[in-house]
Amino acid sequence: MSTIDLNSDLGENVPDRIVGDDEAMLRVVTSANVSCGFHAGSPEGIRATLEAAVANGVTIGAHPGYRDYEGFGRLAMDVDSATLQAHVEYQLGALQALAGAVDGSVAYVKPHGALYNTIARDERQAKDVVAAIRAVDPSLVLLGLAGGVVLEVAERAGLRTAAEAFADRAYTPEGLLVSRTEPGSVLHDPALVAARMVRLAQEGVLEAVDGSDVAVRAESICVHGDSAGAIAMAEATRAALEDAGVAIAPFAVAR
Amino acid sequence: MSTIDLNSDLGENVPDRIVGDDEAMLRVVTSANVSCGFHAGSPEGIRATLEAAVANGVTIGAHPGYRDYEGFGRLAMDVDSATLQAHVEYQLGALQALAGAVDGSVAYVKPHGALYNTIARDERQAKDVVAAIRAVDPSLVLLGLAGGVVLEVAERAGLRTAAEAFADRAYTPEGLLVSRTEPGSVLHDPALVAARMVRLAQEGVLEAVDGSDVAVRAESICVHGDSAGAIAMAEATRAALEDAGVAIAPFAVAR
Amino acid sequence: MSTIDLNSDLGENVPDRIVGDDEAMLRVVTSANVSCGFHAGSPEGIRATLEAAVANGVTIGAHPGYRDYEGFGRLAMDVDSATLQAHVEYQLGALQALAGAVDGSVAYVKPHGALYNTIARDERQAKDVVAAIRAVDPSLVLLGLAGGVVLEVAERAGLRTAAEAFADRAYTPEGLLVSRTEPGSVLHDPALVAARMVRLAQEGVLEAVDGSDVAVRAESICVHGDSAGAIAMAEATRAALEDAGVAIAPFAVAR
Amino acid sequence: MSTIDLNSDLGENVPDRIVGDDEAMLRVVTSANVSCGFHAGSPEGIRATLEAAVANGVTIGAHPGYRDYEGFGRLAMDVDSATLQAHVEYQLGALQALAGAVDGSVAYVKPHGALYNTIARDERQAKDVVAAIRAVDPSLVLLGLAGGVVLEVAERAGLRTAAEAFADRAYTPEGLLVSRTEPGSVLHDPALVAARMVRLAQEGVLEAVDGSDVAVRAESICVHGDSAGAIAMAEATRAALEDAGVAIAPFAVAR
Repeated sequence: MSTIDLNSDLGENVPDRIVGDDEAMLRVVTSANVSCGFHAGSPEGIRATLEAAVANGVTIGAHPGYRDYEGFGRLAMDVDSATLQAHVEYQLGALQALAGAVDGSVAYVKPHGALYNTIARDERQAKDVVAAIRAVDPSLVLLGLAGGVVLEVAERAGLRTAAEAFADRAYTPEGLLVSRTEPGSVLHDPALVAARMVRLAQEGVLEAVDGSDVAVRAESICVHGDSAGAIAMAEATRAALEDAGVAIAPFAVAR
Repeated sequence: MSTIDLNSDLGENVPDRIVGDDEAMLRVVTSANVSCGFHAGSPEGIRATLEAAVANGVTIGAHPGYRDYEGFGRLAMDVDSATLQAHVEYQLGALQALAGAVDGSVAYVKPHGALYNTIARDERQAKDVVAAIRAVDPSLVLLGLAGGVVLEVAERAGLRTAAEAFADRAYTPEGLLVSRTEPGSVLHDPALVAARMVRLAQEGVLEAVDGSDVAVRAESICVHGDSAGAIAMAEATRAALEDAGVAIAPFAVAR
Repeated sequence: MSTIDLNSDLGENVPDRIVGDDEAMLRVVTSANVSCGFHAGSPEGIRATLEAAVANGVTIGAHPGYRDYEGFGRLAMDVDSATLQAHVEYQLGALQALAGAVDGSVAYVKPHGALYNTIARDERQAKDVVAAIRAVDPSLVLLGLAGGVVLEVAERAGLRTAAEAFADRAYTPEGLLVSRTEPGSVLHDPALVAARMVRLAQEGVLEAVDGSDVAVRAESICVHGDSAGAIAMAEATRAALEDAGVAIAPFAVAR
Repeated sequence: MSTIDLNSDLGENVPDRIVGDDEAMLRVVTSANVSCGFHAGSPEGIRATLEAAVANGVTIGAHPGYRDYEGFGRLAMDVDSATLQAHVEYQLGALQALAGAVDGSVAYVKPHGALYNTIARDERQAKDVVAAIRAVDPSLVLLGLAGGVVLEVAERAGLRTAAEAFADRAYTPEGLLVSRTEPGSVLHDPALVAARMVRLAQEGVLEAVDGSDVAVRAESICVHGDSAGAIAMAEATRAALEDAGVAIAPFAVAR
């Protein structure tokens, strides 16, 4: 029987500015990538999300980003190694403390936004992030883009890794994401998305934009929580997977 | 033989804006109150200070403040309990991770600036800070103002506490600090400061502004690191204490 | 014929985290309270909102807040006068420049969140805000809570003022807002809200929570833009006002 | 008779963390590059510096940077054009308002740190900064690195420009700054620095590191305010220029 994880980015709300419904999403996913405060969220809101994750038995991951709060962590930065490593260590420790305060613990790390994209191709920054994770807790699993440079870097350094696919994104024949600037890059049909994810979980294959099949490694599927219909699409995906006999389970558990 | 600790606020520099010479001060003090990034400093600079503290065998304390970077943590804030507790937990965890990354660990907590002053008299905020410390690591010692409310609150909650006196400040006959807005509140003569601290360490007594003697509890003496002559005054104080046969030793060690 | 203005808080979105639909709201309101970046928004997003305001012929107001981005400006702060005045001047100037860059200009000022509430009752902070407005541009109109201290302070200082009522809030028999913590403080029925606002515009009267009528000064009605159904309620209010023969027009125009 | 301007970066202090003595430097220089709050300083401190500049008859320039407060604006960022233009407009407007509040006005713009260096060679970001200046006030003069791309871009766009040389820096035979990472890149001898600046003002020539003479365009000389001995070196430079008969005067005056 196939098994796969569902993950979502959470803890990113500001008081009075609720974009994603963390409580609802925590009833759907098995892994929560929780903001560490550099790109979004606030300590008290992050703590509330962690508490809800613990209550729902959802595995907690750290979701560190560049320090770019006004830009939601989308701004690419040429941060030197000492700075980047310290920024990631700082965020991981902050999240560990908040998780511990609600009797939870951090099991994995999934970088956010521009940092996520940069370390998928920039080996130097990938090494800095990996060094930070190892310095804080070498048992943390790194969750990253299937095929990204950071997964190789992490494995060479002895970290356990997991790859993720994106439920609502189109793929190139090479197994990469179609750029958001391209038409058709984001999928909106819940039934189509669900069917694609069932095939990915069972066969490890997705249909690319040119109609060909492409193999994509994925221990986890990322579902987005911050758009209209996000919860509904996540629920549809989960239901389709379960109906097809795919087990939904976290790819990592905290030590 | 008497024993006393010397502590100083460190890790508060911004790149290219060096106010205090952390390396020099770490050769004088036995305890370093290291910024946690909310009121000053940067993760990479804080990490460098922690590394120097470890190299000098100096005990590491966390120095959390209100989130007021542009105001250096001087701004009093009416933060609700959930927010304040989460802000302190966040900062403690961040510092623990940075300390761990350089093979150090955090042994105590000394709040900064407006937070320090507020919890010396506001029981509600004092309880929030104590709850945060207990949630993160109940073996952490709380270092605070002699006679302050937070020391009682911490002790009732089962935390170990230490009290500090300020080397360069005048005291009222009641054992409180003379307000900085009063003339004569800050002492500038290294010899006078040193002599006062020797008496405090040996007899537990300081001469108040009215000439009377006042008993002041102090396991540690705070020396400031961010003014001209700060290092010299700290060195003079340490030398006078040692000459008088007072042992200089940290009041806490990390678990 | 009666005339009234409709205002809404805009420019508060962060990239990829869209809470309020500024474009849609700018087709309903006649005055836009635009964030100045201290409590929400980003310069580029604020600029885009200003551009849309100009395109829709909507009057631009500055919406300055305390520097509390992670808390959305809800945190009350005991800021000294020099700091508060400079913080408000800074924000007004920043918004003026962005507005000017899109061929618009700022006509009024409506403080945000905790600052709005504080200056409705704290005369010292009210004076600081008024001093800042006068220093930047004494022709700016101050929009504030009907009955609030800041309106008196502003008028004594020679500023023109306007009072606002809240479309979706219940009022006490004294003409004050029922606290959000009370049941029934927020109204959710668009038809009821619309009918109340028609009566306010035509008679200057609202029905208070105890069933009595209370006179409320209002040159403008605040409609909220950041909740589900916000646009619909604003549209319903505007349509009801127009159907009742009330003219919808800005209370101020830029010099 | 030769004339030259002396400029320095000011308004960068945080309360209780005074690195540079703005009051003292304002008695030496004729132009003050005043922080706009993105890389350093605080509105109230910036306002105090502006007030002192007005009192000393010193010309005010805006000193905008990337939004990188913890890194003092040293971090290079790949900011898109809409964002960069809005960030610069925001900062210019904020400083204009603070300057106006103390009866001063902004006459020129000198970008800071990583932004300064980037626009000396990156035409796209240079154009964004120039567009921002033109949108806010096309009479503002751009002060930049002699030979930098941004000066050409600004002139093509119709802005008036001024070039600056650095008093305490070594130059290559091509008239560029020797990188700070090279030995000998920073000069420490006040007499040598002063003699070089006299020759620059009178002949437009500096001796490069290889002993050759190099022509350097400079309407202004930048003296640093944030290191030990900074004031003394600035005073020595000014005295030597005056003794040599060089007039010290601002390169720009506010409209």
